[in-house]
Amino acid sequence: MQLVDSSLAELGKAAKSASRTLAALTTEQKNAALHAIADAIEANADDVLKANALDIADGKTRGLSDALLDRLLLTPTRVAALAHDVRNVSTLPDPVGTDIDQRTLPNGMELIRRRVPIGVLGVIYEARPNVTIDIAALSLKTGNAVILRGGSETLRSNLALVALIQQGLATAGLPATAVQYIENPDRALVAELLRLDDYVDMIIPRGGAGLHRLCKEQSTIPVITGGIGICHIYVDAEADLTRAVDIIENAKVQRPSVCNALDTLLVHKAAAVALLPNVAARLATHGVELHVDGRSHEILRDSTAPLIPAAPDDFDKEWLGLTMGIKVVDNMEEAIAHIHAHSTEHSDSILTTNTHHAERFVREVNSAAVYVNASTRFTDGSQFGLGAEVAVSTQKLHARGPMGLEALTTYKWIGLGAGHVRE
Amino acid sequence: MQLVDSSLAELGKAAKSASRTLAALTTEQKNAALHAIADAIEANADDVLKANALDIADGKTRGLSDALLDRLLLTPTRVAALAHDVRNVSTLPDPVGTDIDQRTLPNGMELIRRRVPIGVLGVIYEARPNVTIDIAALSLKTGNAVILRGGSETLRSNLALVALIQQGLATAGLPATAVQYIENPDRALVAELLRLDDYVDMIIPRGGAGLHRLCKEQSTIPVITGGIGICHIYVDAEADLTRAVDIIENAKVQRPSVCNALDTLLVHKAAAVALLPNVAARLATHGVELHVDGRSHEILRDSTAPLIPAAPDDFDKEWLGLTMGIKVVDNMEEAIAHIHAHSTEHSDSILTTNTHHAERFVREVNSAAVYVNASTRFTDGSQFGLGAEVAVSTQKLHARGPMGLEALTTYKWIGLGAGHVRE
Repeated sequence: MQLVDSSLAELGKAAKSASRTLAALTTEQKNAALHAIADAIEANADDVLKANALDIADGKTRGLSDALLDRLLLTPTRVAALAHDVRNVSTLPDPVGTDIDQRTLPNGMELIRRRVPIGVLGVIYEARPNVTIDIAALSLKTGNAVILRGGSETLRSNLALVALIQQGLATAGLPATAVQYIENPDRALVAELLRLDDYVDMIIPRGGAGLHRLCKEQSTIPVITGGIGICHIYVDAEADLTRAVDIIENAKVQRPSVCNALDTLLVHKAAAVALLPNVAARLATHGVELHVDGRSHEILRDSTAPLIPAAPDDFDKEWLGLTMGIKVVDNMEEAIAHIHAHSTEHSDSILTTNTHHAERFVREVNSAAVYVNASTRFTDGSQFGLGAEVAVSTQKLHARGPMGLEALTTYKWIGLGAGHVRE
Repeated sequence: MQLVDSSLAELGKAAKSASRTLAALTTEQKNAALHAIADAIEANADDVLKANALDIADGKTRGLSDALLDRLLLTPTRVAALAHDVRNVSTLPDPVGTDIDQRTLPNGMELIRRRVPIGVLGVIYEARPNVTIDIAALSLKTGNAVILRGGSETLRSNLALVALIQQGLATAGLPATAVQYIENPDRALVAELLRLDDYVDMIIPRGGAGLHRLCKEQSTIPVITGGIGICHIYVDAEADLTRAVDIIENAKVQRPSVCNALDTLLVHKAAAVALLPNVAARLATHGVELHVDGRSHEILRDSTAPLIPAAPDDFDKEWLGLTMGIKVVDNMEEAIAHIHAHSTEHSDSILTTNTHHAERFVREVNSAAVYVNASTRFTDGSQFGLGAEVAVSTQKLHARGPMGLEALTTYKWIGLGAGHVRE
């Protein structure tokens, strides 16, 4: 086992070296390592559960909320699920080595663009220990080495899991340094990792807005930011208002704590009177608090739903809970302008039966995912059929929206000549 | 005409707003604007030539080298070529609006991944005024707004060109703010631009290593770094040594000042005695200075070529001129290890008749472009058939190697439902 005792640069150097070994592996070799890791987790579940029990006890002492403690908690069932997830990654298609395109240039040289691993990934995440396993498995499958830095709340659980990952790697004859963990809890190590551009090729933050901002501000390594969703549904004048209530309910309450949950409902003035009371009544059954603009307040004044006049910055909030903003708009232009001003370009939807409106909304709303007559909750790697989800990107370079295995690859150009020189 | 008089944030805001107009244009509308720009350049070539004459006069006063002055110089022929280049961009296929993939999910939702413009580009470049025209044309073709910041040596030429670009945009009914220029020569403006992440989506530096480092260090916006090439040719024990001399000559001297020119020649010890004297003799006809390791020095001791013992850091230099390093290696493993240690992962080539060696080199050398039996000089957008070249990326995210029009696009996911909610 090789956890951190050495400096971060040594970790980086070891990762770079391991990445060269990983890049040359066949899919079969990588899958064998994934199975060895799953075996190690299953055979040593007790080690993980003991470490997690210490984390949970500490968390209780530190007064963490029950909801957070439940996110951190590992049970025999959850550990078994981790092993199952690793085996599942072995069944996914391997993007590495596939050719994106291939052609013969006019001079006769054969030019191939081939998918290859990125190299070394740095992943900074908060809380849940399953991220440790997910990211390690997805990195290994794509031939990338990874340096992990998890939250302090589950340090012991993460270290126990990394020890088993490294045991699996060793069993498969691979360098344990393919998956390394920054054990030192000093926050300065995060800033150091973000500047390790001699060795690390890509930084993926998985956490709140503060973490993403920190990475954007301080990293000299390309960062994939995302995960923050101020999501909108716009109900057009021409819309199926019965279905609209179901879609709004689903987008808001099916899992309110996540980034693709609905934050702000925009309603055309012609649909507002018929729609809003039904929306308020349905959401009231889930205890949703409504932050309403003047016009929707007027329409809902007889409603028994909890209403709060919307504060100026309420439409710039990702609620992550049972709260929703409502605004009545004069037309679709106003709805699109509101989305341009307030969306984080994550997931936005229009409910309409008018094809022209749908097309215009899809064209003008430039979010990672734009929906017509559907809930925003679909923005997700497994819902999109990607087989896995590394993260959800809301930036525009490299990958946008749910990131599958392909997002952990780059390409190289291969020119096969026969003594070719440039004229 | 709308050049900079306002603050940088206002420039950014105007660019963002223009980008929304551009994103909704048809290919025909964008091509019409390109033609209007070409017309404006042709009709007002004198304005550009006058502005350039002032820049050149200033440059002479400031003691710029003749070589640099020639790069900055515009002539009637060169201005005509600029207009021609803009018309050429109008003939390229428009990647915007094409669907990368499209499928029906198991729940019946139609999921489309469609290419869209990135939004607002920030391009920081040095010296040559043709970059002003190239980047503006490529940005417009892909529906992106752009903020330009060129070198002070050609400020007047750049402003004259931007005025004509904006005139063409206005003629075509498009916002002049689609192409803006930071006129204020204060270097602090560059640092400000790099932190304008509220409005700018992508930074492309075009210049030397210092500029790329500055962008990497200071930008909170995703940056495409690249353009620095420490390029290698490895001559295997089994290689056509006659062709090898031609390829090495081409890679080194066909255009020595550019990033894909050869910097270091690695030669298998079994080929060195037969190859090196011929290489030295051929390169001597071009006045190439050779920085040689001990073994190649020994082999070349009777050569009349200019020989200098290689200093420890000579193999970490991008020569950009008539200089080349030579090192004899024991085997291909040593060559690959040398490339791993010293390459900037731009362009590296193996000359061999052994297929297994070629395959291994292509697999293990992880550079943007890897060649077999060809010159490194082919790493170029037009050589690769991309029709245009925005820049050459040596980073691994988003785009790698020569960047064509596609590299100026991102994609959005479009989900077309019929009342779909997530289970």
